[in-house]
Amino acid sequence: MHYELYYWTGIQGRGEFVRLALEDAGASYDDVAREQGDDAIVRFLDGTHEGALPFAPPFLKAGRLVIAQVANILQYLGPTLGLVPESESRRLYAHQLQLTICDLVAEVHDAHHPIASSLYYEDQRAEAQRRAADLRETRLPKFLDYFEQVLERGGGRHALREHSYVDLSLFQLMAGLDYAFPRAMQRLGHQLPLLRALSGRVAERPHIAAYLDSSRRLPFNENGIFRHYPELDDPR
Amino acid sequence: MHYELYYWTGIQGRGEFVRLALEDAGASYDDVAREQGDDAIVRFLDGTHEGALPFAPPFLKAGRLVIAQVANILQYLGPTLGLVPESESRRLYAHQLQLTICDLVAEVHDAHHPIASSLYYEDQRAEAQRRAADLRETRLPKFLDYFEQVLERGGGRHALREHSYVDLSLFQLMAGLDYAFPRAMQRLGHQLPLLRALSGRVAERPHIAAYLDSSRRLPFNENGIFRHYPELDDPR
Repeated sequence: MHYELYYWTGIQGRGEFVRLALEDAGASYDDVAREQGDDAIVRFLDGTHEGALPFAPPFLKAGRLVIAQVANILQYLGPTLGLVPESESRRLYAHQLQLTICDLVAEVHDAHHPIASSLYYEDQRAEAQRRAADLRETRLPKFLDYFEQVLERGGGRHALREHSYVDLSLFQLMAGLDYAFPRAMQRLGHQLPLLRALSGRVAERPHIAAYLDSSRRLPFNENGIFRHYPELDDPR
Repeated sequence: MHYELYYWTGIQGRGEFVRLALEDAGASYDDVAREQGDDAIVRFLDGTHEGALPFAPPFLKAGRLVIAQVANILQYLGPTLGLVPESESRRLYAHQLQLTICDLVAEVHDAHHPIASSLYYEDQRAEAQRRAADLRETRLPKFLDYFEQVLERGGGRHALREHSYVDLSLFQLMAGLDYAFPRAMQRLGHQLPLLRALSGRVAERPHIAAYLDSSRRLPFNENGIFRHYPELDDPR
């Protein structure tokens, strides 16, 4: 199967969680908007196509299927790409973990846009500083301690006792948080040895290492979800 | 199969999306915390049980399975309860729609808690007024127009051309929004004839009507997700 991934150009964004799965598995795919421009996405949002209507990118075309929402796409790809365990209970758990990662990603986004996605960061900076402080002090420790505990229950090396798309997403989560909140992550890092070690192992997987070294891996930037605004990180 | 639903007492909250599916299907279930208190939930969050670790309620026990995240639970229950179409493409679409509903529910929550869940509403009221204005003017129209379009593409009567858990969740979404933002919803309602009609039909389904009339259906209140603070609604 050849896949078409649709996601905004210029950022890693939510599309990156899907890209990492496709890259890790060595799947054949086009990153359509990077080739044709963002208009290729808008055509689907306008609903002129047959089939499922996406609310927002990323979405994946797989034959005639149009599949939106990161966790839904990964759940669909997991079995075919060998990125999820066989058993029903593990697949449900994988999906639950992915949804929890997506929840945290939304909170990270809202730390720099607590009032409105449609406003500039500069127009909500004061509110962002309040919200980011809560993210660093309350939410990040809660979520990351949870994932650390998940790894511990899974034997220490994987979220699900074997490699899966969840491990790839945890890598991306840690990479994004390290970029956005380097001081807070240094403070919290000592309590997250399993997450740290997992991130290191994922980065060394041959396909992932090659991808991270390629021009397809865009650098993090201040248009994406994980943004580095020093005033939103721990005070020096 | 007998199910155990775990969700905080005293509110409809996110648990209500699962309750509506169980009630509509006439499934056998215990609402465990309402019988045993919230401690029954905390035991699972502490991770002393075998199997999947939930991050937060609601979660469902189905035999030995522990399943968390609303959309994950509904996806699991859908086929057994006859609340999702047969085909893979429709099931993927159902799940995508449910995830999009969950995204909006999170935004509705953040409209009254834009800074921190851990703070009182009163401590973030000014920020809430800014965020709620954006929700009413930008986000609600965008999401609700989208769902209206989904209904139109599905033939007008259902999200998926037949009854499903998505229709039940759209009913709950509209009920919650009507409670929280009566003036904004009256303004927007004229553009949402299909969503309005669907909500009416769902409320008249015999099992749903009986449930809504029972003491199991808690009233909306200001501890839940959908809260009525007049200052967050359209100005008079």
